[in-house]
Amino acid sequence: SVCSNQRSVRERVPPLLTDLYQFTMAYAYWRAGRHQEPAVFEMFFRDNPFGGGFSLFAGLNDCLLFLRSFPVFVDTDVQFLRSVLPPNTDPAFFDFLRGLDCSAVTIRSLPEGSVVFARVPLMEVEGPLAVVQLLETSLLCLVNYASLVCSNAARFRLAAGHQRRLLEMGLRRAQGPDGGLTASRYTHIGGFDLTSNVQAGFLFGIPVAGTIAHSYVTSFNSLEEVWPQVTPSQWPHVSIDIISLTKGWLRRVCELMGAEPGKIREGELAAFVSYAIAYPQNFLPVIDSYSVGCSGLLNFCAVALALCELGYKPVGVRLDSGDLCRQSIEVRRVFRLCSEQFSVSTFNSLIIVGTNNISEESMAELNKKENEINVIGVGTHLVTCTKQPSLGCVYKLVEVRGRPRMKISEDPQKSTVAGRKTVYRLLDHTHPALLAGCTLTCYPLGGDNSSVSVTPAQVTCLRKEVFLEGQVTEPLCSAAETRAKVQSSLQTLHPRHKRLQEPDSYTVALSEKLRNLVTELQKDSNSDSNFLLAN
Amino acid sequence: SVCSNQRSVRERVPPLLTDLYQFTMAYAYWRAGRHQEPAVFEMFFRDNPFGGGFSLFAGLNDCLLFLRSFPVFVDTDVQFLRSVLPPNTDPAFFDFLRGLDCSAVTIRSLPEGSVVFARVPLMEVEGPLAVVQLLETSLLCLVNYASLVCSNAARFRLAAGHQRRLLEMGLRRAQGPDGGLTASRYTHIGGFDLTSNVQAGFLFGIPVAGTIAHSYVTSFNSLEEVWPQVTPSQWPHVSIDIISLTKGWLRRVCELMGAEPGKIREGELAAFVSYAIAYPQNFLPVIDSYSVGCSGLLNFCAVALALCELGYKPVGVRLDSGDLCRQSIEVRRVFRLCSEQFSVSTFNSLIIVGTNNISEESMAELNKKENEINVIGVGTHLVTCTKQPSLGCVYKLVEVRGRPRMKISEDPQKSTVAGRKTVYRLLDHTHPALLAGCTLTCYPLGGDNSSVSVTPAQVTCLRKEVFLEGQVTEPLCSAAETRAKVQSSLQTLHPRHKRLQEPDSYTVALSEKLRNLVTELQKDSNSDSNFLLAN
Repeated sequence: SVCSNQRSVRERVPPLLTDLYQFTMAYAYWRAGRHQEPAVFEMFFRDNPFGGGFSLFAGLNDCLLFLRSFPVFVDTDVQFLRSVLPPNTDPAFFDFLRGLDCSAVTIRSLPEGSVVFARVPLMEVEGPLAVVQLLETSLLCLVNYASLVCSNAARFRLAAGHQRRLLEMGLRRAQGPDGGLTASRYTHIGGFDLTSNVQAGFLFGIPVAGTIAHSYVTSFNSLEEVWPQVTPSQWPHVSIDIISLTKGWLRRVCELMGAEPGKIREGELAAFVSYAIAYPQNFLPVIDSYSVGCSGLLNFCAVALALCELGYKPVGVRLDSGDLCRQSIEVRRVFRLCSEQFSVSTFNSLIIVGTNNISEESMAELNKKENEINVIGVGTHLVTCTKQPSLGCVYKLVEVRGRPRMKISEDPQKSTVAGRKTVYRLLDHTHPALLAGCTLTCYPLGGDNSSVSVTPAQVTCLRKEVFLEGQVTEPLCSAAETRAKVQSSLQTLHPRHKRLQEPDSYTVALSEKLRNLVTELQKDSNSDSNFLLAN
Repeated sequence: SVCSNQRSVRERVPPLLTDLYQFTMAYAYWRAGRHQEPAVFEMFFRDNPFGGGFSLFAGLNDCLLFLRSFPVFVDTDVQFLRSVLPPNTDPAFFDFLRGLDCSAVTIRSLPEGSVVFARVPLMEVEGPLAVVQLLETSLLCLVNYASLVCSNAARFRLAAGHQRRLLEMGLRRAQGPDGGLTASRYTHIGGFDLTSNVQAGFLFGIPVAGTIAHSYVTSFNSLEEVWPQVTPSQWPHVSIDIISLTKGWLRRVCELMGAEPGKIREGELAAFVSYAIAYPQNFLPVIDSYSVGCSGLLNFCAVALALCELGYKPVGVRLDSGDLCRQSIEVRRVFRLCSEQFSVSTFNSLIIVGTNNISEESMAELNKKENEINVIGVGTHLVTCTKQPSLGCVYKLVEVRGRPRMKISEDPQKSTVAGRKTVYRLLDHTHPALLAGCTLTCYPLGGDNSSVSVTPAQVTCLRKEVFLEGQVTEPLCSAAETRAKVQSSLQTLHPRHKRLQEPDSYTVALSEKLRNLVTELQKDSNSDSNFLLAN
């Protein structure tokens, strides 16, 4: 699956798919002879998304596939760039662009699927100044949405609890085809079990699900449209009049429930019978095209009982409107009643799928209320991340020619932390202690500049080298492996940081050494600019 | 440009990029021998996005390119589908899939770029039941986001007024690479002038813009990094010591403004000089990396005055943080002062670009306040459509085998309007009257079922056939043509419907004939289902 994905990297992230200023800056660096200067950028975001206490880091695999297939400037690219850049651009610059590659780029990164926090440097990109600058937009584009939608999926998973299965079905509401595919991949990684997106199943091995839509139900008008009306059974040489059989069951179901046969939709029954003939082992219709209680549920029971009589196991129903909890309880009650009354134990294991514009809030509410829903499908709010549709990862210069660089903005939120860093996570005593504890002094970010002392039970170094000399140096994880990583990474996090509303914030701090560097640079910056007076 | 885009349609919308239930339904139709039945679906949305009074219809071109390249089921697709569909699926179905094409599909549609409203049927898709069902997800995916982001761009344009130029720069915040490309295309169509996305310039002919980021500025530390320090001038055999020249101007600027030279950032000056050497005709730096008033603006003026002295025309500045209005006024004041003091008329035509997390609200506010901003760049809020990140177009069955079909839901909002339709727009006397007026009776949707009489000055039939027998029957419009269509279409709409807040709603109504059909079907549906009693 990694290979299938890889084939389309050049098509998916063409070399011109970047902001123009990356090229104008590359030219200016080249013109000043600075393009080969060693430089280091780092990627981080300033706030956890959705008002949450954590985020998940995703998109690294896509970045590595992109880097591996870089450079890719072909004639038409260069011709177009020439037409866009000012006419006085030195033609030799385009030869430089054609010769570009990532053989001098090194990436150190947290693993894909890690729990991360605001201000943690996720990825460090080291290499020639012009090259690592050129990578900015593509890397941000590949990480921002992947991490956002993965984090969103993890929140839906936390809201849903661990028992229910979650189905992603947002393709039609995503930002076009590739947005939908990306959503399917990273929501699976974030904790969803299934997708409706067949291509995501094909490329990433995600289990796919789906049966019928309302249009299938409304396309039928009468039982005359059912064909073949006489169906071969599981047993050779035995044919079944499926319609008579179903009608018989429908009569018994109506009697059992005291239902009015006059309100039952014939077209809906025809659709269900027809679908059952096509997929007798996979019968799971949507039952609210007209009325669940007056028609859909009765029709389902009739067809499902007929299937049971023929030796098949119907699967369940889907509810797509109204109060899902209340309806699911009623549906379950009827299933149990049928099971007892008609002695069909299969009816005890029917599943109920709920899909109705589910948001994180309605998921959490649903999880608190009594209900009988086994599978929940989420589309719009999952893939578009309604609560916060962008993450805001940034890519900032932290070192050039071995000198730490820092943006000292008038807006303190926009200031950066200079220099290359090692990123540690300190684990407390509730986790297995692998290292003897020793006390560290560190300076929480966003605090009042005072220090705190911590004695971790274990210290983990979070980043490792994943790309060196044009090569990916760690095996690329499958979606399933990264999905497992997400769950294990989330398990190391205390529940107070995982609360969906008003979580406790996780402390991200600078070491004493890094803190001293930052202080020194701020001091320098107030004194190193008097060249004008000296001149 | 259409051709370049077309090449990647198969790659962009692969045949498996759809919801699984499209295949399971197609199989069930096929199994029941109904797959060739003539059917009609229509596409519409139920609410105008962003609480607005209108929307724009976009994505049609992409749909047509997709339909033209359909079918595309290759061996690996079919193998995967076999592995996903239930094992009892008849193998002959896969032969049917391989033979699928759109030669029997007809599309009638509003033109791309039209102003549209909730409940207006945008596109009608007619063809064999199984084929037109299979198209659902792809067509919705191509129309939903395109229309949404195009409408969003039009609202930003309305908020900004017509004088300012608008730059789209959201690639890094979109749903991955293709989401960003789609955003660039459709925000241009919706009214943006420029994009930062080079690939969008390449594919769609959108003017691209961009110069430098903060990282370029912070990568410089001292004037020693500027190279070549002695620059060839416009005139042959004349070399200029650009640094001395700039320092001289900086001293004069500081004197003029009473500024403290000690607060000026040498690295920033070095960056500006370096960029000016690379692009003397295109000098437009970002001036708030440190402090606009204490450093960035002074450095800009010094370099720009040096460029003027050398016979070049500097372009302007970019502000990327803080109160853009207030700063732009101060910057303009300084430009005017320099122009007068140093007699450089070029300083009267410098442009100010503002970029700082602009939303529709902040754009509207900015437009009300005094300011001197000429170009506004918008990223996140534009491409992610923060206010409402999905449109919710749906695709509903309205006719099978010549019989109108209708979903009569318990939720009236979810009911559909049966039957094929002709879509008219009635224009009033403020528009040129081409037809003699005659009085019509019609029934507004969402009303109390009462009729209204209207005497339009002109009646326009909105939809036309755009796809027939596998061929696109109308010329595909370029982005520029569709962009013009958007503006002319918006001009026919009364301002009260274009208000961004609490607009008057535009009436969408059924004709008497269609209204009668709907009433009849609702009546029928209450009486035609007594088959169980009769049996």
